[in-house]
Amino acid sequence: MTGNRPNPIRETDDAVRAEARALLEEARFGALGVLDPESGAPMVTRVAVGTTPGGAPLTLISALSQHTAALGRSAACSLLVGEPKPTGDPLTHPRLTLQCDARFVARGTPEHDRLRGRWLASHPKSKLYVDFADFSFVVLEPRGGFLNGGFGKAYLLTAEDLLPPA
Amino acid sequence: MTGNRPNPIRETDDAVRAEARALLEEARFGALGVLDPESGAPMVTRVAVGTTPGGAPLTLISALSQHTAALGRSAACSLLVGEPKPTGDPLTHPRLTLQCDARFVARGTPEHDRLRGRWLASHPKSKLYVDFADFSFVVLEPRGGFLNGGFGKAYLLTAEDLLPPA
Repeated sequence: MTGNRPNPIRETDDAVRAEARALLEEARFGALGVLDPESGAPMVTRVAVGTTPGGAPLTLISALSQHTAALGRSAACSLLVGEPKPTGDPLTHPRLTLQCDARFVARGTPEHDRLRGRWLASHPKSKLYVDFADFSFVVLEPRGGFLNGGFGKAYLLTAEDLLPPA
Repeated sequence: MTGNRPNPIRETDDAVRAEARALLEEARFGALGVLDPESGAPMVTRVAVGTTPGGAPLTLISALSQHTAALGRSAACSLLVGEPKPTGDPLTHPRLTLQCDARFVARGTPEHDRLRGRWLASHPKSKLYVDFADFSFVVLEPRGGFLNGGFGKAYLLTAEDLLPPA
């Protein structure tokens, strides 16, 4: 069915790992996929995106949102980051798909306070709502991912590939 | 837990229905959520987006892509459209989440030929690959959705809400 076109998965090297980390570090928002608690079907919403000091993706979401209820029921989720430029075919722009497990960060913990400070430095407008009682920081612990660098250029990534170099 | 903040779901009216349809009609790409066939977890990727003459979202995807294999196993999917402008808080920009069932369109059928012509008018660059044997048109039949118009402005939509007015 695929004719003569080759399998698009290429070998992951340090340049690919660096590009994947850059796409994540530069992201200010992304598309989060969760499982709808009622139907079990996928549900994709836009969320704000930052990172933890360890390099994992981080989001700040409201308990009033459907994705938050979904993550409370099933931690399995996926995050897409890497926005196309305004010109050119958007499918030629690199993007990163991560498979993650969501972990809610409890308020009043040292981890929450560290993440709050780091988040406000990168997302200053969220000071308007970061302390609302319905908002939670959620670390999206990566299990793996893949980088799509445009047609025919795809790379699989492990959780370790996504960590900053030691 | 939510303090005094009200439930953000508002009443869906004709202006909301028109905004949802406009977000879909204007989309050239979106974030597609599918179920990973191996793990059952969500997986989000970028896909090209158009519409059918009846107003349903349409995509053109390759059998070499992970999302295509996933949709072949489970038709349940979700599509996020509505890109933020380059300036301002990206979470204040309206976006539309659809819950859909994917339906592959067989080549050589009148429906395929109609969709191909319409697609090439809105996505002229895809003439480079639209006829590759591994590419398929897939109609994303909406079951429902919700429009997020910014903080505290969310609207539930039925499949009928998403159809153009008769």
